[in-house]
Order: sequence, then structure tokens, then C-alpha cells
Amino acid sequence: MATVKLLSDAEADAIPAVKAVFDDIRATRKTDFINNFWRGLANDPASLARTWDNLKTVMTGETALPPAVQEMIYVAVSTANGCTYCVHSHTAAAKAKGMTPEQHAELLTIIGMAAQTNHLVTAMQLPVDDVFLVES
Amino acid sequence: MATVKLLSDAEADAIPAVKAVFDDIRATRKTDFINNFWRGLANDPASLARTWDNLKTVMTGETALPPAVQEMIYVAVSTANGCTYCVHSHTAAAKAKGMTPEQHAELLTIIGMAAQTNHLVTAMQLPVDDVFLVES
Amino acid sequence: MATVKLLSDAEADAIPAVKAVFDDIRATRKTDFINNFWRGLANDPASLARTWDNLKTVMTGETALPPAVQEMIYVAVSTANGCTYCVHSHTAAAKAKGMTPEQHAELLTIIGMAAQTNHLVTAMQLPVDDVFLVES
Amino acid sequence: MATVKLLSDAEADAIPAVKAVFDDIRATRKTDFINNFWRGLANDPASLARTWDNLKTVMTGETALPPAVQEMIYVAVSTANGCTYCVHSHTAAAKAKGMTPEQHAELLTIIGMAAQTNHLVTAMQLPVDDVFLVES
Amino acid sequence: MATVKLLSDAEADAIPAVKAVFDDIRATRKTDFINNFWRGLANDPASLARTWDNLKTVMTGETALPPAVQEMIYVAVSTANGCTYCVHSHTAAAKAKGMTPEQHAELLTIIGMAAQTNHLVTAMQLPVDDVFLVES
Amino acid sequence: MATVKLLSDAEADAIPAVKAVFDDIRATRKTDFINNFWRGLANDPASLARTWDNLKTVMTGETALPPAVQEMIYVAVSTANGCTYCVHSHTAAAKAKGMTPEQHAELLTIIGMAAQTNHLVTAMQLPVDDVFLVES
Repeated sequence: MATVKLLSDAEADAIPAVKAVFDDIRATRKTDFINNFWRGLANDPASLARTWDNLKTVMTGETALPPAVQEMIYVAVSTANGCTYCVHSHTAAAKAKGMTPEQHAELLTIIGMAAQTNHLVTAMQLPVDDVFLVES
Repeated sequence: MATVKLLSDAEADAIPAVKAVFDDIRATRKTDFINNFWRGLANDPASLARTWDNLKTVMTGETALPPAVQEMIYVAVSTANGCTYCVHSHTAAAKAKGMTPEQHAELLTIIGMAAQTNHLVTAMQLPVDDVFLVES
Repeated sequence: MATVKLLSDAEADAIPAVKAVFDDIRATRKTDFINNFWRGLANDPASLARTWDNLKTVMTGETALPPAVQEMIYVAVSTANGCTYCVHSHTAAAKAKGMTPEQHAELLTIIGMAAQTNHLVTAMQLPVDDVFLVES
Repeated sequence: MATVKLLSDAEADAIPAVKAVFDDIRATRKTDFINNFWRGLANDPASLARTWDNLKTVMTGETALPPAVQEMIYVAVSTANGCTYCVHSHTAAAKAKGMTPEQHAELLTIIGMAAQTNHLVTAMQLPVDDVFLVES
Repeated sequence: MATVKLLSDAEADAIPAVKAVFDDIRATRKTDFINNFWRGLANDPASLARTWDNLKTVMTGETALPPAVQEMIYVAVSTANGCTYCVHSHTAAAKAKGMTPEQHAELLTIIGMAAQTNHLVTAMQLPVDDVFLVES
Repeated sequence: MATVKLLSDAEADAIPAVKAVFDDIRATRKTDFINNFWRGLANDPASLARTWDNLKTVMTGETALPPAVQEMIYVAVSTANGCTYCVHSHTAAAKAKGMTPEQHAELLTIIGMAAQTNHLVTAMQLPVDDVFLVES
């Protein structure tokens, strides 16, 4: 039903470059579960390795933002881009990493309000105030 | 240059419903500066009051997320929606509320990576894994 | 500054297929003014003719919606798609065709509120109620 | 299956702030039916009350635009933002408020044509004509 | 389940203007299959004829780009616009017109990377380099 | 004017990790010119290195698609995402890599038509035909 094949574990294991990434995902996340995103990307082992490497670098280890906040930003972008799969998977990740129901509710409210003011600003075609343009 | 008039202070002061909101913005934010968003919205005093009231409720007082995080979520949505004015104003607000350069850099990286995986997922039309669909 | 050349009147007159369209735009709109959209499209005379023909058919003559409403719908889509040029040109057209300041204010409010609820719905990933799915 | 719980009538009735809004929705719309949007928002009673209050103010009572036109603008924004739920619910609302099949067909045509010209303009990066920038 | 009726062959045959387009689609594509896009558009025979006429002109006959490349561009736009139906139908068309698995993989990678750098650029609000603005 | 500092050559040279990337960009592209995208990203040397590494891997060397086609796909995504900077820079790159005026015109036409049919499909909420869902 996807536009690419979703590789089964057997199919993934048969391709060393894919197996290596799947093994690292499992070790890093401490779970056997591999979600469909990686099974789809596995059709292109180089892209799979590159994408996992980037994600692992940014979202794990020493980060500037708490893990739950990282996932909430991910949910915000995924919502604005209309990605059903991504909203589901990153909302689940945010909850797993400690997002409280109150934080989830506030996240939704801010996403909605930002979209509203984004559209109002675009419809009014407002010039940026000089004060926002000073060099940081 | 906007599609609506941007009300000057004199014009705003002449409309009691607008003056009341501008006064409250100044008092709440502890600054005389009123940015163009409010000057444009002021053409519709009811919309101005409603929008300010909502924003004040959500973004000030007791919040579930730290103010800098709220603004970073705002930047994330504004970027995905392509709103130049909003990216500028909310990036400035995030900095003013304590976002560090390291957090800004990580915010940009997550926004970029989320957009990338959003588009990969949509291009592959992946079905949502069952595990993400269990009731919260 | 555009990614294509904007044809001057002299350049347009030198290409019969372009001249014919420009003449028809002027006659239909009862003005000598040709805006940049058509000057850019004129690099591809077939596309210019096709686009003008479609626009003329839909937006003039016997229409199901009043001209100002047509333009307001155009502004709504252009805002959501983040097209600066289009927001400016179709807001101007809506005003010229009779959109009142009160209607403009309400248009902005509905665009903003729709964006807000669109994003809330997407972030919550709501299933469509059965009642909305009955055949029309 | 949503990322939030959809409150049942029993659950809604148990929270006075939610019950009050649901009662008002039923009274205002003269129907017992509460659609999923409100059942999802009800997880955050303050957001529920604020959103309903805004929607009721804008979409009912004395409006500058006919109800069916308001809903058509809502459909236009929802389409451009890719919100399945919203396209379904507001198309149903537009029909209920009197949108004719001819108006629906014209709405679709204008949405499609606006998207086409939006993208053409963005791909050409056209400068806005001076005439569109004069103060309204 | 759609917001419009999808015309059956019998219903299409009963409307001469629709039958003419369906016949031409079948003859041009050398297949009896008519996909839902045309069955939905058929509610508005004029829009059906115009859209098919435009598509046929652009996508068949003498083209400047190979058919598979045309479809890949279509997939790229459809992905960024979040259109599930369109991603499916144009990916299928690209495969049918010769897109190899390696080209499909590279298409996905470029779509993802473009989205990433698009968002990074927007979040940084970069000024366009002068060198990109010289007249073509 | 950007939300980040654009590093000058002197500033870039003072950071070894940045200098290394800038040197490689210059060597790979056989030009001294470094565009603003890299000067902005240079605030985060790790992100700069990762992004350049990915781009270099995908867009140079042995590719499945011709360089001009890669850039045209980039333009298509950038247009749909409304990224002014990206439309300019990748249109310039496509021309430099051999995109003809006829191909540019056809690219614009397909982008516009795809956006039109994307929006029509979304407004009609069409179910995907079974034939498009068979496993590839």
C-alpha cells in the first residue's frame, strides 16, 4: 500500500548495510521494534544509513534541548506539514520521553495559535518591524 | 504596502476599544513598543481584542512549558508555514526569553530534519504502525 | 530579479500569440494595464494563452458566485499557500469588485480561524465523523 | 486512534466546564450531535471554551458574509492546508447552509486555479506590481 | 465518501460532454480504466474537459522533458502539497513510464533534502545572494 | 537581517571545522563563491558539515538522474514549500547545469498543473483507486 516495499526482518537481514543500521537502531533504542519509516527507507541502504546517522546524532547523546521538547518541535513541524504518520509517531515519542498531558494540551494550543497568526500576518502582508531585524 | 492600514498611535488612541488593548499590551510586556501585527489587526477591534486575549492567556502567566520553549514551537510552525514576519518576531522573542545560541542551532536542525522525514514519509505513503495508534 | 524575463509591451507586441492574449486581457478588463503575472507567463505563449483562457472562463461571464466572493476565495487559498504576489493582487481585485472593509475583516478572521482549527485537527489526528461521509 | 482521547457524552458531562460548552453547542446548532473536533478539544476545557466562543462569535449572529460563503472560505483554507477532516466537515456545513452544486463546482475550480497560479507566481518569483501596493 | 459523487460509467455515458472526455482519455491512454480523479471532476463537465485538455497538451505529444521526468516532478510537488491520492497515482505513472528503482530512490532523497534545506533557509531568513538575481 | 549571523570569509577561516567545509565546497564546485546558505549554517559547524556532506553525496558523482533534472526536482519542492531563496538558487543551478528555456517553461507548467490537481483532489477527498495500491 506504500509506494515502496516495507522490508521484513528477513529481507533486512539479507542486506548487510541494512542489517547494520537495524541492529544499531535496536541497540540505541533498547527495543526490538523497527517502525515502518526505517523499513521503507531500507530500499535505499545509503539513504537509510545517512538518515539514521543524522537522527541519532541530533536526537540522542548531549542535546541542547530536553528530549521531550525536541519531540514537541518535531510534532509542530509535522503538523504544519500535514504528515499523519509523523504526527502519530512523534506524539508517541514525546509521551514516552515525558511530555505531560498539560504540556501536550499547551503544545496543541500553541500550534493552533501560531497557525492562526501566521495566516493573519500573510493575509495582511505585514512588513517586518525594524526592531526584529537588528543583527543578533 | 500591507493589504490593510497599520494604525498609528494617534489613530489607535482615537478608538477606545483599540486603545484599551494597546494599553494592556504595553502594560503586560512592559514596553511602549507595539509591533505591526497589532497595528494591522486594529482595523478590526473585536478581532484585535480576541486575538490578544487568547495570546495573553496562553503565553503568559502559569504555563506548562517554559516561555522560550513556547516561542521555539512558534518558530517551528511559522517556518513550516513560510511566514517571514512570524519567523523574525518569534525568533527575537525566543532569544529575549532565554533561548541560547546552542538551543537555536538545535531548533534549526530539528526543524530541517523533521521537514526532511515528513516529506520522505509522504513520498513513501507509509502506513502508521499499529503501536502508534493505541489509545493514549 | 524574477527567474524569468518580464516581457515589455514592445517585446510582447513582437510575438503575435502573446500580443493576441495581451489585447484580449486589455479588452476584457477595460484597462491598458498588464500585470507582471502575464508578462512572466508570456515567455511561454501556449501557457499564457491556456491560463488566460481558463481564468477568463471561470472568473468572468455567468458565474455561480459573485465576483467579490470569487476573489475572496482566491485570497484564502493564496494566503494558505503563502503567495505574497497573489495575496496582494487578489486583495486588490476583491476590493475593486466590491468587497467592503467589514467583509475584508471577516475574511481575515475566517482564514485565521480555519488555519487554527486545521492545525488542531491535524495535531489531534481526528477521525472524520460518519455523518460527514454520507454521500451527497 | 487519535493522539488524544475523544470524550464520550458521559465523560463530558462529568466535567462542568466541558458540559457547559457542549450544551451551548447543542443549543446554538439545534442538534444533539457533537462532532469529534469538540470531543478531542475537550481534553483541555479552557481551549475548548475559547475555541467555541471564537467560532460562535465569528460564524453566527450578524455576519458580513453569508453563512455559505463563510463555509466556502473555510473549505478553501482547509484544502490548501491539506486537512481531510476539515474539508469534509466544512463542505458538509456549506451544503447545509445553502451552497448549490453549481457553487460547489465553482468553488473547486477557483481553489484549483488559485493553487496553479500561486505556484506559477512562486516559481517565477514575480515582483509585486506597484499598483497593488498603494495604500487601501 | 468523497465530497462529490464519483460518476459510474453509466452515469458518465448519459452526459455527452462527459462521455466525450472519457472516450478521449481511454483512446489516448490506450486503456479502459478511468481513475477517480476524472470521475469526480465529471460533476462539472466544463472543468473536466478543460483539465483533461490541459493535461493532455502538457503531458503527451512533443515534450521538452522525458515522460518519466515529468511524472517525477509531479510526485515532488504532490509530496510537498501532501496529496496522498496524487503521490500514489503519479508514482505509479512514473514507474509505468520507465522510472527505475534507483531513480525513485534518488527522487525520494532529493525531495527530502530539498524540504530540509527549504526549512533551514526559511528559519534563517536568508537574503538571496546577488548572483542569483541577475537577469536570465 | 537574517535570524543568524552570515559568516564572512575571515570569520569562517577562524574556525577550522568551518574552513574545511568551505574549502571543500570551493574545490568541489570549482569556484570561490560561497552562497549565504552555507554562511548561515556555519554558525553550527556540525550541521554545516553534515548538510554539505549529504548534499555532495546526493548531487554529485554517480547519480541516477541527470544534474539538471535533480535541480528541477529541487525547484519543484522549493516552489511548493514557498522558499524564495531556494527557488532562486536552484533555478540558477538548473540553468547552469543545462536546463533549456523550453524545459524551464515545461517545468513551470507541470508545477502549476500539479498544484491545481493536488488541490482539486484534496477538495474532493478522492479515495485512491485500488490499481494504484498494488505492491510495486
